[in-house]
Amino acid sequence: MEPIVECVPNFSEGRDVGIVCAINQAIGSVAGVRVLDQTMDADHHRSVITFAGSPGAVVEAAVRGAAKAVETIDLNLHRGVHPRLGAVDVIPFVPIRGITMAECAAMAVRAGGEIWKRLALPVYLYGEGRRKLEDVRRGQFEGLRNSVLVDESARPDFGGPELHPTAGAAIVGARKVLIAFNVNLNTDDVRIANAIARTIRTSGGGFPNVKAIGLLLQSRRLAQVSMNLTDYEVTPPHVVFQAIGRQAAEYGVSVAGSEIIGLIPRQALETEGVNLRIENYRPEMVLEYRLEQTLK
Amino acid sequence: MEPIVECVPNFSEGRDVGIVCAINQAIGSVAGVRVLDQTMDADHHRSVITFAGSPGAVVEAAVRGAAKAVETIDLNLHRGVHPRLGAVDVIPFVPIRGITMAECAAMAVRAGGEIWKRLALPVYLYGEGRRKLEDVRRGQFEGLRNSVLVDESARPDFGGPELHPTAGAAIVGARKVLIAFNVNLNTDDVRIANAIARTIRTSGGGFPNVKAIGLLLQSRRLAQVSMNLTDYEVTPPHVVFQAIGRQAAEYGVSVAGSEIIGLIPRQALETEGVNLRIENYRPEMVLEYRLEQTLK
Repeated sequence: MEPIVECVPNFSEGRDVGIVCAINQAIGSVAGVRVLDQTMDADHHRSVITFAGSPGAVVEAAVRGAAKAVETIDLNLHRGVHPRLGAVDVIPFVPIRGITMAECAAMAVRAGGEIWKRLALPVYLYGEGRRKLEDVRRGQFEGLRNSVLVDESARPDFGGPELHPTAGAAIVGARKVLIAFNVNLNTDDVRIANAIARTIRTSGGGFPNVKAIGLLLQSRRLAQVSMNLTDYEVTPPHVVFQAIGRQAAEYGVSVAGSEIIGLIPRQALETEGVNLRIENYRPEMVLEYRLEQTLK
Repeated sequence: MEPIVECVPNFSEGRDVGIVCAINQAIGSVAGVRVLDQTMDADHHRSVITFAGSPGAVVEAAVRGAAKAVETIDLNLHRGVHPRLGAVDVIPFVPIRGITMAECAAMAVRAGGEIWKRLALPVYLYGEGRRKLEDVRRGQFEGLRNSVLVDESARPDFGGPELHPTAGAAIVGARKVLIAFNVNLNTDDVRIANAIARTIRTSGGGFPNVKAIGLLLQSRRLAQVSMNLTDYEVTPPHVVFQAIGRQAAEYGVSVAGSEIIGLIPRQALETEGVNLRIENYRPEMVLEYRLEQTLK
């Protein structure tokens, strides 16, 4: 069986579906690649495209997607509630079958080199012996484009030191399957979401393998705990969902529901009877289901 | 000021975002056209793309979108809960400013002629002195491709008598701004949604300018009253929403929420204090807001 790699780039455009579709088509133009999912969020002003295929095809598709993002997105005009550094913000390669994490990390280095060479877009490497994603993105586009000029340790791994004037920089790496899981609270007080995020995330002494921030969804007037679960076998969604519900109750606030951004492995939906109340649930969001459907 | 026409084609693909994006890009490739919205529904297996621009550009974009649908969608493989006749199922032209309904009907004739000539896709004309949409679509793809052979009155206005073997036929016409409004019920008993649909729709002696059917959303196990409000100034959404809530209560069922497919005019959100509980509400779904943003 041919090795299969998943790639889940995040783009800093969540409102203009024409731009996101242009990126989608650039990715899908590579033979041997299938686009599995596309999610847009107007408040985050961000979209996530999930695709998979053989390693060589996936690297080429990632570069073509990045090229279209550089062409169409100007970060100087971009305001959203999700932190971001680049027009194509993060490009993770994920081993699915017949390939190791180390091989995916080598794909990231290859893709990063191509992105700098072909697009003049500086690249940071993250994960597995490289920097941490949240460290790279600290300060975001507006902050980092100044600090790269004075702080050598902040410089990109490919290109730079200056960031791209409109597209910033891309952050490329290998990682395990990640679940992007957001829990919405029935309040517009973002301080409550922030306080809960601080207690549940790993860096605050909470659950292992959890990154969390508080955000305000302007369009729905709801505060949101926005999370990445970086090892769902250690900390599954229902564990953080219950913890958030308990803490929210202490603030006198209820949980409005939850959302999955992108795809979720089937095993993560085994919740020991907890109802995750996923507002956007569809069978199509189950990773194995989409892989079976599209990669024979 | 240049006249502005809106076009809201429905395509029989609601699952593969790559196909819908390819159609989106074909439409957006015409200078003078802006894509305003794209909605996909996996259960309906249907997507709706809203775009606007000057009359000539809008006709050309409609034909290019139809061409991409003919190329990518095969109705022989299509199963969804929404009735459909074609790969591009219905193509309505809507006067927005500086253009009359009669001029939009003339655009429909022009687009229909082009679609037959360039794509060999038969076309039915509907609205304003032509057939009714629901009459054309009765029997759907599987039924009509037989009946056109024996029933002269069922034959297309352009092309035919045979339908296209994979893409069926398109239904093209002019109409007022329409609101596609769905109300979801907390039951998986589709008979309740059907019974309610029958009493509220115009053809059942209900409200004027309301078309309604009952559907089952497989992925959410919810029954849905799926509606087109063809003149929201006569019958606004909150009037049908309240009527559905009252009738559902008589069946012992509550309303789970509602959805807008595509865009909604601002005036239709003036609901006299009724909360429509639109699950997918975003400021971006307000028609005037999108037009202001994109057409200067």
